[in-house]
Amino acid sequence: MIIKNVLATVALLTPVYALSAEFVLTDSATNTYVDHWKTSAQELGINTTTPFSIEKKRLNTGKQSGVDIITIDNGELELTLVPTRGMGIYQVRKEGKRILGWDSPVKEIVNPAFIDLESRNGLGWLDGFNEMLVRCGYEWTGHPGVDDNGQLLSLHGRVQNTPASLVKVEIDDEAPHTITVTGVVAESTFKKSNLSTETRLNIIPGENSFSINDTLTNKADYDDEYQIIYHSNFGKPILEKGAKVHSAASEISPFNDYAKGGLKSWQTYLGPTKDFDEMVFNLKPISDPEGNSLAVLHNKDANSGVSMRFKTDQLPVLTIWKNTDTLKQGYVTGIEPGTSYAYNTKYQRPLGLVPTIKAGEQKHFDLEYTVLTSAEDVSQAVDNVAKIMKKQKVQLKSEPLVDLSH
Amino acid sequence: MIIKNVLATVALLTPVYALSAEFVLTDSATNTYVDHWKTSAQELGINTTTPFSIEKKRLNTGKQSGVDIITIDNGELELTLVPTRGMGIYQVRKEGKRILGWDSPVKEIVNPAFIDLESRNGLGWLDGFNEMLVRCGYEWTGHPGVDDNGQLLSLHGRVQNTPASLVKVEIDDEAPHTITVTGVVAESTFKKSNLSTETRLNIIPGENSFSINDTLTNKADYDDEYQIIYHSNFGKPILEKGAKVHSAASEISPFNDYAKGGLKSWQTYLGPTKDFDEMVFNLKPISDPEGNSLAVLHNKDANSGVSMRFKTDQLPVLTIWKNTDTLKQGYVTGIEPGTSYAYNTKYQRPLGLVPTIKAGEQKHFDLEYTVLTSAEDVSQAVDNVAKIMKKQKVQLKSEPLVDLSH
Amino acid sequence: MIIKNVLATVALLTPVYALSAEFVLTDSATNTYVDHWKTSAQELGINTTTPFSIEKKRLNTGKQSGVDIITIDNGELELTLVPTRGMGIYQVRKEGKRILGWDSPVKEIVNPAFIDLESRNGLGWLDGFNEMLVRCGYEWTGHPGVDDNGQLLSLHGRVQNTPASLVKVEIDDEAPHTITVTGVVAESTFKKSNLSTETRLNIIPGENSFSINDTLTNKADYDDEYQIIYHSNFGKPILEKGAKVHSAASEISPFNDYAKGGLKSWQTYLGPTKDFDEMVFNLKPISDPEGNSLAVLHNKDANSGVSMRFKTDQLPVLTIWKNTDTLKQGYVTGIEPGTSYAYNTKYQRPLGLVPTIKAGEQKHFDLEYTVLTSAEDVSQAVDNVAKIMKKQKVQLKSEPLVDLSH
Repeated sequence: MIIKNVLATVALLTPVYALSAEFVLTDSATNTYVDHWKTSAQELGINTTTPFSIEKKRLNTGKQSGVDIITIDNGELELTLVPTRGMGIYQVRKEGKRILGWDSPVKEIVNPAFIDLESRNGLGWLDGFNEMLVRCGYEWTGHPGVDDNGQLLSLHGRVQNTPASLVKVEIDDEAPHTITVTGVVAESTFKKSNLSTETRLNIIPGENSFSINDTLTNKADYDDEYQIIYHSNFGKPILEKGAKVHSAASEISPFNDYAKGGLKSWQTYLGPTKDFDEMVFNLKPISDPEGNSLAVLHNKDANSGVSMRFKTDQLPVLTIWKNTDTLKQGYVTGIEPGTSYAYNTKYQRPLGLVPTIKAGEQKHFDLEYTVLTSAEDVSQAVDNVAKIMKKQKVQLKSEPLVDLSH
Repeated sequence: MIIKNVLATVALLTPVYALSAEFVLTDSATNTYVDHWKTSAQELGINTTTPFSIEKKRLNTGKQSGVDIITIDNGELELTLVPTRGMGIYQVRKEGKRILGWDSPVKEIVNPAFIDLESRNGLGWLDGFNEMLVRCGYEWTGHPGVDDNGQLLSLHGRVQNTPASLVKVEIDDEAPHTITVTGVVAESTFKKSNLSTETRLNIIPGENSFSINDTLTNKADYDDEYQIIYHSNFGKPILEKGAKVHSAASEISPFNDYAKGGLKSWQTYLGPTKDFDEMVFNLKPISDPEGNSLAVLHNKDANSGVSMRFKTDQLPVLTIWKNTDTLKQGYVTGIEPGTSYAYNTKYQRPLGLVPTIKAGEQKHFDLEYTVLTSAEDVSQAVDNVAKIMKKQKVQLKSEPLVDLSH
Repeated sequence: MIIKNVLATVALLTPVYALSAEFVLTDSATNTYVDHWKTSAQELGINTTTPFSIEKKRLNTGKQSGVDIITIDNGELELTLVPTRGMGIYQVRKEGKRILGWDSPVKEIVNPAFIDLESRNGLGWLDGFNEMLVRCGYEWTGHPGVDDNGQLLSLHGRVQNTPASLVKVEIDDEAPHTITVTGVVAESTFKKSNLSTETRLNIIPGENSFSINDTLTNKADYDDEYQIIYHSNFGKPILEKGAKVHSAASEISPFNDYAKGGLKSWQTYLGPTKDFDEMVFNLKPISDPEGNSLAVLHNKDANSGVSMRFKTDQLPVLTIWKNTDTLKQGYVTGIEPGTSYAYNTKYQRPLGLVPTIKAGEQKHFDLEYTVLTSAEDVSQAVDNVAKIMKKQKVQLKSEPLVDLSH
């Protein structure tokens, strides 16, 4: 099928028609840039039962000034991607309402230019934290602290506060017309790191799911450490009193002493709770024969939720972050597959959770998010977790993996 | 009276006609933004004896790149507001010349994106300091230093280096057609602070005064500390050798050992003086029965000056900062009502000068600045200070409130 | 000769016709700015044998967002200047290929808004390091470290990460129609520094050379320290295995213990070498009777290279930085005349290499870069070095000037 070229008047865009329509929205190598752009099934001459549209804008207000966002409406879900913030996913909406995401006290989509990651002893990242999907990496991740070499590692690394240098949108010209948004985010510091991540978001028109397929490349001639946490955050409407999380995992332990008190009830959530702050659990996920693990979060009535599929050979650990404090503080839970837990890097090396990426090597990270919209959806997702578990139970380990007292 | 809609061609603006004409220039919540905008009495169909105009621009040069400014000409005064720098007032001009403001070595109106507040051990704020009105707060204020919890508190807080997320202009449709510029500046850091300040500048066409009416809201569900200093800075033409300050106050003490030597002559100013550096005095202002205190600065001939009215229940202390060093270093004095003096926060807690704002609470700060343009104006303002003082004298305390030696 | 005004439709530009055509591209003092601008010999009505053109653009992608670049094509060389990065020279191209410059792992021309110079203990500068000419100064230069007063001096100072506040282009209306790009870069921090550098790049149409003529002014009323290194960086195609550097110098010493091993072979270069990292040498340049010293870098076949002329009374020391690590790490050498070597400032004061600039004083720095395009060019340049040396040899000193062990 040939998609007709309808972009003759948009000089900056480079549609390339091979097996897909490709639109380069940003490319630092060629200084290609489009300020405002939109396409749709109709405009592309694609005759689908589910019309879709993709729009790119630049924001201009307050701390949002200079932030690029891309909104993808696949007919069922409306995703907001943020190229300027490491290709993070701000939120997912359905039927005009947010279904995935949360209400952070940080209301703007903050341009990294306004963020000093090392401020507050490495907590500057908190000035911009409000997305549904935040990549925490790749040079390091975890809580801030001075590493063994004397360098402060700021909270959760730098990638989410790194603008993408290349952004393109592809629409497959064959049914089901998969939409792919690719963004390249480079962590390049002379003599320090040369990690480049090609992020890919794939979504099919009319479906209630989307996938992340990232490729991290060590472009240096030397091996390097890397760490990544896919910090996936969900608040209202899924999170509520009585909401529940299911995870195919062999064991769970408390992150610290405070979390010991919540270990037994790790699967269920409180409503917004004053003085709760945050409780964190470390899980060891297990997978099906294809290597996939599954985590499911659903509401109290078990008729709305989200499932996350990920590969345990790529992301061998899982953090569950229960931040069920009051609504205004940011009532939210994080379901966070990663190479690493949320401890500072220096604590994770002895645990074997700071892997190496060889010179020139590539690492792949594949995740699938599915919005569950009915009791049947939720029930089936929970069953899928049970299938992986094969009637085993998650073992509760009462002691944290790391002794943070010294 | 109905103001006719003259903005049909400016699609981004949202004029709302109720009791006033309202123009939203910036709103992060709705992604409303206007790059360049201007209105005037004539354009609004307002038939006044004093024509006024209001213009909004975005600057594009050097460190000013991306800075929004609003110029308000009320027929007597021309004020320059800087939404990108926390709604600060850059300067006030009269008859084509600056009357309020000063000549800083910092010449550009610096975009906070180029400032790292924690640089130079917390002195990064000095890279952008050149305004007539700088709000120093609200999460903390004062000299930089490591707080008891180990966090570096950078000089004078973050609000002046925070772009406003909402900016709107209102013109009352009833005489005297008060012009109000509202700017919301949010200090939002996940788990750290959620202080939002709605700043309001009010000015009536044809008058030589304007007021600031700010409302600080603690949007968090927990009580928080706050501090604010309204750092109001005046250089030429008011400040000169023999210029004088009057303040309704019960006592004054030197900030540090250096200021002891200038205590007795605290009211008078030197001309530009090599090696003077800065001398700081801490005052306890007193108020009239309505709760208003008054400070007046005037030139040697006592025929030009500025008065500042403020409420002692809102801003219980007053700092006078005499920076009468050479012209090129920034010959300037600060008249600075605040909740706090300029010491680091950890020194002010024992003084009871780090107040608490409860969850959801609002604090109001109301100041009025009047440009004094004649001997009569000055004389009357000085008399008003005397009336509050009721023949009492400011008590001189020879020792600083804080022992900075350890 | 009168150059006709061809810019009637470009309202922001201010062509002034006296002895030259002058175009102000950026001026913070007057808020003059032009987003995109181009001129050429043809457009100016200049009838030259070598047509030239000058173009100014703003970049909009990734970390380049908001970066202004100026491209000057003099018919022989195409230079890319970066006003937003302290008027640095990104690269020089000839016949469509880069001749001067190098391949850094940092691929974008990074807006300083995205750089935190104090990050990684003062190594934030490395996030943007990729230019052919980087000015390292002027408030300080050298490796990061805490100075005697307790302040962290970040790597190589702040000027390269300071956007120019004034940029103008002049084309002489008399033959040979010298093109001059002037950029003013202000390091202004209240109470800390008021150093302003007027950088000038001069190039004549049709020539294979260009000059830098910078004037540093201490605009403060107090004396100040200053330091500057003209960090000039060359990789492929000139740098290769067997490439050679010649420098008119009286002595050379290793920067540190590691460089001791390469002292004897300081003139020749290795090819890209794994684990080489960097080797640094400190030279004392000498000059001809006119005060000019000369350094020459050429390829193995001695038919391509670059020469740098500089004045030893302005720039009394020379650093040779051999970073002949692998291609992907940034295979590059720096030929770096300066007031100072690359040690942290506190080590250079005892060496007398942290000079003073008096209040109001100006310091000039004049350098000339010539692209050598034939064996004759190279041979003559090497001869010129020999003439200054008068048959003396560079004395090898085996010990570093600074003992870095404590």
